[in-house]
Amino acid sequence: MNTEFILQVQCADCPGLIHKITGVLFNHNLNVVRNDEYVDPQSNTFFNRAQFTGDFNRDQLNTELKAALSPSAQIKLLRSRQKKIVVLVTKEHHCISDLLTRHEFGDLGAEIKAVIGNHDVLRSLVEKFDIPYFNISHLNMDRAAHEDLVIKKINEFEFDYIVLAKYMRILTANFVEQFQHKMINIHHSFLPAFIGANPYRQAYNRGVKIIGATAHFVTADLDEGPIIEQGIHRINHQYSVKEMAKAGKDVERDVLFKALKKVFEDRVMINGHKTIVF
Amino acid sequence: MNTEFILQVQCADCPGLIHKITGVLFNHNLNVVRNDEYVDPQSNTFFNRAQFTGDFNRDQLNTELKAALSPSAQIKLLRSRQKKIVVLVTKEHHCISDLLTRHEFGDLGAEIKAVIGNHDVLRSLVEKFDIPYFNISHLNMDRAAHEDLVIKKINEFEFDYIVLAKYMRILTANFVEQFQHKMINIHHSFLPAFIGANPYRQAYNRGVKIIGATAHFVTADLDEGPIIEQGIHRINHQYSVKEMAKAGKDVERDVLFKALKKVFEDRVMINGHKTIVF
Amino acid sequence: MNTEFILQVQCADCPGLIHKITGVLFNHNLNVVRNDEYVDPQSNTFFNRAQFTGDFNRDQLNTELKAALSPSAQIKLLRSRQKKIVVLVTKEHHCISDLLTRHEFGDLGAEIKAVIGNHDVLRSLVEKFDIPYFNISHLNMDRAAHEDLVIKKINEFEFDYIVLAKYMRILTANFVEQFQHKMINIHHSFLPAFIGANPYRQAYNRGVKIIGATAHFVTADLDEGPIIEQGIHRINHQYSVKEMAKAGKDVERDVLFKALKKVFEDRVMINGHKTIVF
Amino acid sequence: MNTEFILQVQCADCPGLIHKITGVLFNHNLNVVRNDEYVDPQSNTFFNRAQFTGDFNRDQLNTELKAALSPSAQIKLLRSRQKKIVVLVTKEHHCISDLLTRHEFGDLGAEIKAVIGNHDVLRSLVEKFDIPYFNISHLNMDRAAHEDLVIKKINEFEFDYIVLAKYMRILTANFVEQFQHKMINIHHSFLPAFIGANPYRQAYNRGVKIIGATAHFVTADLDEGPIIEQGIHRINHQYSVKEMAKAGKDVERDVLFKALKKVFEDRVMINGHKTIVF
Repeated sequence: MNTEFILQVQCADCPGLIHKITGVLFNHNLNVVRNDEYVDPQSNTFFNRAQFTGDFNRDQLNTELKAALSPSAQIKLLRSRQKKIVVLVTKEHHCISDLLTRHEFGDLGAEIKAVIGNHDVLRSLVEKFDIPYFNISHLNMDRAAHEDLVIKKINEFEFDYIVLAKYMRILTANFVEQFQHKMINIHHSFLPAFIGANPYRQAYNRGVKIIGATAHFVTADLDEGPIIEQGIHRINHQYSVKEMAKAGKDVERDVLFKALKKVFEDRVMINGHKTIVF
Repeated sequence: MNTEFILQVQCADCPGLIHKITGVLFNHNLNVVRNDEYVDPQSNTFFNRAQFTGDFNRDQLNTELKAALSPSAQIKLLRSRQKKIVVLVTKEHHCISDLLTRHEFGDLGAEIKAVIGNHDVLRSLVEKFDIPYFNISHLNMDRAAHEDLVIKKINEFEFDYIVLAKYMRILTANFVEQFQHKMINIHHSFLPAFIGANPYRQAYNRGVKIIGATAHFVTADLDEGPIIEQGIHRINHQYSVKEMAKAGKDVERDVLFKALKKVFEDRVMINGHKTIVF
Repeated sequence: MNTEFILQVQCADCPGLIHKITGVLFNHNLNVVRNDEYVDPQSNTFFNRAQFTGDFNRDQLNTELKAALSPSAQIKLLRSRQKKIVVLVTKEHHCISDLLTRHEFGDLGAEIKAVIGNHDVLRSLVEKFDIPYFNISHLNMDRAAHEDLVIKKINEFEFDYIVLAKYMRILTANFVEQFQHKMINIHHSFLPAFIGANPYRQAYNRGVKIIGATAHFVTADLDEGPIIEQGIHRINHQYSVKEMAKAGKDVERDVLFKALKKVFEDRVMINGHKTIVF
Repeated sequence: MNTEFILQVQCADCPGLIHKITGVLFNHNLNVVRNDEYVDPQSNTFFNRAQFTGDFNRDQLNTELKAALSPSAQIKLLRSRQKKIVVLVTKEHHCISDLLTRHEFGDLGAEIKAVIGNHDVLRSLVEKFDIPYFNISHLNMDRAAHEDLVIKKINEFEFDYIVLAKYMRILTANFVEQFQHKMINIHHSFLPAFIGANPYRQAYNRGVKIIGATAHFVTADLDEGPIIEQGIHRINHQYSVKEMAKAGKDVERDVLFKALKKVFEDRVMINGHKTIVF
């Protein structure tokens, strides 16, 4: 199978952009397999993702694309490939279990470089799959000191993304800023409903008939990052908080993977505090 | 077909309640077609709905049920029948269109006694179906005075429920209290997300991937009443606010009818600020 | 607001097609608002839908597009506009009720030129909305003779599409061929499950947990035409055939409208016996 | 926490059954936590599931229930407990991965006694979790001989249910009859659509817009057993057969677990070739 490449372009909209971009690709004899674009009407920004195959000189293609587009255009030329990730966890296994077993059979679309936890509960699971596990306990340590250790450990690995697979620690702005647009979290509610702690308890108290989960990029504002994917589960009055949490875990797991799949395939572009998912 | 009856019981839980209730029904040779119960573990309250057929003396059955249960038990003995409703609207047609056409063909489970609007936009539609339409404009009038007129008009009709089918006025506590547990609203968001005005604009700004609608009983707290039914619609970055509103209207219409169907069939019991839907 | 145009192109795939098409549009100073394409890997066919605004000479644009593409390319240049439809019905009101009320408020995206039934049940509803209704009874008439009358009546009107809104007659190949790719049906099952008569009875007997509906273009093979949209509704053991049919009607109505919306917006292209829905 | 018990009763319907059953439980001072019943109107059969806590003499309770009900009534008195299962697999990991990881953390509601495969692909995964894996290859062996070996191996273990977690072998009537109502299969289509081999290829060829999965008890008729649970996934024209299969695997996994959860909680009763799921 031919290697696929992805071209992501973001710039101010004007007529002829697709024509210009596809022209550069055509001149290099590249074969566009899929092409998606979107113009944000509020900011008049053009977003384009082109998936293509063929042989080309990377520098030359980049140069020609820059020449064809405005100087302020953001151009990303990516080879379709397995991403590298570091996963952060606490005690719950449902998300990391899913990632590990998909990884084991080559279904994840990413290589798990390491799993870092703030408890030791999940070590045994992770090590079954020959993935290094590091327990960095937050006990007897202030938040900044603990985060420094975690950041240091993360940075020991080469990674594209950090996946917060039920990492139940609030992150400081300092932490978040270091990994801008590189950190994906799964939140156990249908955001923006039930922001913050114990959303299933909140949902139970409110008497909702549907619960959900939200995968999003992490920004400094708690639970306010760009949403990638959401999912829901219908409940009724018979669900206790515990049963809601149990049913919710399956939604969390599914939503996280669906979001990661799209991110790993370079199908997600960030538009301010929103996402474009091609 | 035999007339069906519904018995709703709500009381403090203790062993043997179902046995006692079904005993009274059995002694009257009544045939239980469906029986549902639920015990709220927080308040230790027992909720029961029994659907049955047969001939019986209403007073005697009531007396025996009271004797079998604790004095504080709430007992409702209802004949399954078409409910009577008054509908309040503003300008949007999607919910009232659905109610009117179902009503025309006997599919609504209720008789529409009147439609009251604060604009004249929907008069022509409503009158096509030979339902009286009353326009009570709020222009040049303070909220209390307008509400008094609406309340007076509502009370001219015999009704079981008031349906707020996109009635875009905030109601005062005075209004709400007069129709406790009798007023059902459709809110154009997946509550408790996007409480208040312009939820589709809020949803657009937040960049959610799913929008929704919520049908609930109206209480004095805006959008905080017991939820009866919720529904959702998946969206993506391509949806403008207008397209979200358009897609959302279909969800609103569906959720409102699903909620009303359950209410009209006496399948909804109120448990504080939550509902039990059997 | 500017008039929008839609260009649909279908041809054998080769490199540079998007570049060529957008080039023609760019040379005419046309502004592409949305562009979607798909290559069917089985038949190596390229499908493109471009939505654009601007002023242009239709003949000239067509000529240039033809020159840019292979001679066998199918090119459709459409002005975005209300479609014209003729609706066929039998006795059930749920689909036609929805179409009529949307039509009344300009939400349908189409003008209903006439409704033709083989019973008189829905006349009163249709005439409320000042739409001509024609009852062409099939009683005491062979199928061919009845169809001839229906075809004759349909052809009295200018129309883009014929909508079978629960028209419960099996159509002959002769009928179908006259309206190739112009006739949209709503089938009351999740095709290809429960092809043919009484799908809800079939679903009840099989004990399925989900029922559905399918909107499709009509071809000579019964229930085998290209599927445009499908929808589902969860059921359980408590649903009788009648309750399944009732719940199913709401799905049918929703699926039919969702399909029509896409067809009316020229977002559906036919690929053999399948559809591409942009 | 108190041990819970489940009473399942199936018998010809007549008035007073719930009263009689709850009477026996009440006389033993047992506390009914949840009670569900259903009367099949076709066969006039009464189905009841009562969940209760308390201390009782099993023989005496059984005797009294038999005395209270007709002699032909089927009465099952079950202690709520972890079930024991044997899992059959072939090469696909998605279902067994889910079962193993839930099992590891006590979330499965069952003890996996053994996994039996007809390939060796999944051995390494299964053994990571210290579950015995047996590869019984079907190569160079006729169907009957292979089945005999599998049956013999299954019967070495104490089990309540056999789970076919993507076991890609057609079973003979002989095999099926030995494990009547004890074998649960996950089929990779929305039955009864696409019965038989390669349902995703069939779905691709038909151009459906929704794919699904079905968990069912296995009977001698291929893919015709009582359905326990179904689930769906929306697709579009862009999905290849491979992508449909990939997306479908997640549905299969979810549907299988949802079905097993209900079976393990004794919430599923069999009504001919249909199920009642309380």
